[in-house]
Amino acid sequence: MTAEKDVRRALRATTNASRLVEICRRAVLRHGGDPATADSLAASAVYAERNGKPNQGITHLFDYLDALRDGRIKGRPRPSITRPSPVTFVADGDGGVPHIAFDLAVDQLAAAVRNFGVAVFSQKNAYFCGALGYFVERMASHGLIALATANSSALMSAGGSASAVLGTNPMAFAAPVAERSPLVIDQASSQTAFMNVRESARLGRSIPPGWALDHEGAPTTDAEAALDGVLLPFGGYKGSNIALMIEILSAMSGGNWSLDASPFDSGDSGPSVGMFLVCLDPNLFDANFSTRLSLHLDRLRDDFDVRLPGGGRTSRPFPATCDLPVQVFERLWARAG
Amino acid sequence: MTAEKDVRRALRATTNASRLVEICRRAVLRHGGDPATADSLAASAVYAERNGKPNQGITHLFDYLDALRDGRIKGRPRPSITRPSPVTFVADGDGGVPHIAFDLAVDQLAAAVRNFGVAVFSQKNAYFCGALGYFVERMASHGLIALATANSSALMSAGGSASAVLGTNPMAFAAPVAERSPLVIDQASSQTAFMNVRESARLGRSIPPGWALDHEGAPTTDAEAALDGVLLPFGGYKGSNIALMIEILSAMSGGNWSLDASPFDSGDSGPSVGMFLVCLDPNLFDANFSTRLSLHLDRLRDDFDVRLPGGGRTSRPFPATCDLPVQVFERLWARAG
Repeated sequence: MTAEKDVRRALRATTNASRLVEICRRAVLRHGGDPATADSLAASAVYAERNGKPNQGITHLFDYLDALRDGRIKGRPRPSITRPSPVTFVADGDGGVPHIAFDLAVDQLAAAVRNFGVAVFSQKNAYFCGALGYFVERMASHGLIALATANSSALMSAGGSASAVLGTNPMAFAAPVAERSPLVIDQASSQTAFMNVRESARLGRSIPPGWALDHEGAPTTDAEAALDGVLLPFGGYKGSNIALMIEILSAMSGGNWSLDASPFDSGDSGPSVGMFLVCLDPNLFDANFSTRLSLHLDRLRDDFDVRLPGGGRTSRPFPATCDLPVQVFERLWARAG
Repeated sequence: MTAEKDVRRALRATTNASRLVEICRRAVLRHGGDPATADSLAASAVYAERNGKPNQGITHLFDYLDALRDGRIKGRPRPSITRPSPVTFVADGDGGVPHIAFDLAVDQLAAAVRNFGVAVFSQKNAYFCGALGYFVERMASHGLIALATANSSALMSAGGSASAVLGTNPMAFAAPVAERSPLVIDQASSQTAFMNVRESARLGRSIPPGWALDHEGAPTTDAEAALDGVLLPFGGYKGSNIALMIEILSAMSGGNWSLDASPFDSGDSGPSVGMFLVCLDPNLFDANFSTRLSLHLDRLRDDFDVRLPGGGRTSRPFPATCDLPVQVFERLWARAG
């Protein structure tokens, strides 16, 4: 890498978040996405940037733009939603991004949760979710608890397999905290995100032990070898079990198993995977819940030095601006035309 | 340890499972439990033994017997259940074992899940759950998917704390598999169960790195030092996040936080912790679910050498007999009088 490239990588561009959303929208529209797809992808990518997860943000948006261009995401899907009971929402994403059907259902979903205390949203035949925390945080901002899971194409070992059998299958959880931002957990089932291995390979860097196996199933610290091999689940067999649970919940209504899902970054067919979200109204169980949780999180942090998930954002508002590497910003600008 | 003790430890007593249930029931009744408590504890302990989890089985029953004798479990509780909506069951365990309120609700709970696709059972003010898989497997045996969580008194670090802030907070998950036993996951949030550290200390053995910190917050392999210190979560910060999620769900309706719960093995007051169970009818989402899952699990095991959770019991029926160390059997017999 030249010194000039190093300098350019270190340069940052600061953008107002709503302006960044607008540029992302333009990029999605220009790659064949309809307005609903543009709204969904822009909101989700900027959410991840503001939330301090750049790997799920603008950099990841380029994967979505490529997938739109190549037909792995249907840009003008017609998702449908059925409601077999007042508290179950079953969506067919019609090959588009999963956010669209979620957006169509979300108001009725929240109302069902308030009326009944619990409701479930299950989707099949959709593209990958991107930042899964986006979905649960939206529910939590309405005072609700949410747990979401999603599956994706096979990239990860499970149960000691030498080859990839599950996606990096994330789960996300959010709970409302009185007078503060919600508590949000959003994590892959793999020890690390695929993006991190891809980025290490791009930079010619090695990866830590425990992240991956090579194509023969042997542990490796070579990022290139890891790209030819498989990611490892976090936390040994217990993390592997959680990845399997996520797989089952996510594909419950008929989403493809990870093994049957097309890759996210090549080919012309969509992965048709699934997502699952269960949402609770804590007020039906204890009217004092969010205050109790607030006091408890304060105690954990202040009296016991617990680092809370989300980097302590529970006591910090979302930033109004996004701070991106200039290279990423210029690349986005070019894609937005 | 003497050679004689070694020999006695190696001797096994084989008992018919239903006979073992009867001996456990007698022991519970003799320690002040009412018939409902006796039924619950006996069924749960023998379930764990048959399921190949002896640490949650008869050995753990002795903890319950001690707790009944000392008043940490109320032997004749009057649990109550409210139903704020058709799909939410909120139980107050009245200081007894949590199984009793669950047993009172389970038929209506299963009916609600069948009618509505999803229902939630939340309990506060109860003793620890013991084998949590017991609860979800009962739901799965009716063709339902279940996810359960429970909290317990603080024994474990979380978020990098030097002291104990969470229980070993287990989660359990079960899904129905066509023509086979359900798939069951049942695991603590700690790297290892407290029982394993206690047993290592009793035998004068060291423990593996990663299980625990000493009382100063330093990593230790000394089992005695670990008993004075804290257990570690499995899987680093991701496992720690899951333990926190479990804590929040379990205490949702007003169960004590782990920090406020009395120890399970000393004192005369109950922990008054909580449990949470959400249950789904997969048929409302996809009528073909359990067949799809069956084929998928076969493929994972046969084509990809995946070790499935539950030690492959999905293809093996529950044993009709339990095989216990003679010492444990004799100790149970003595407690049963």
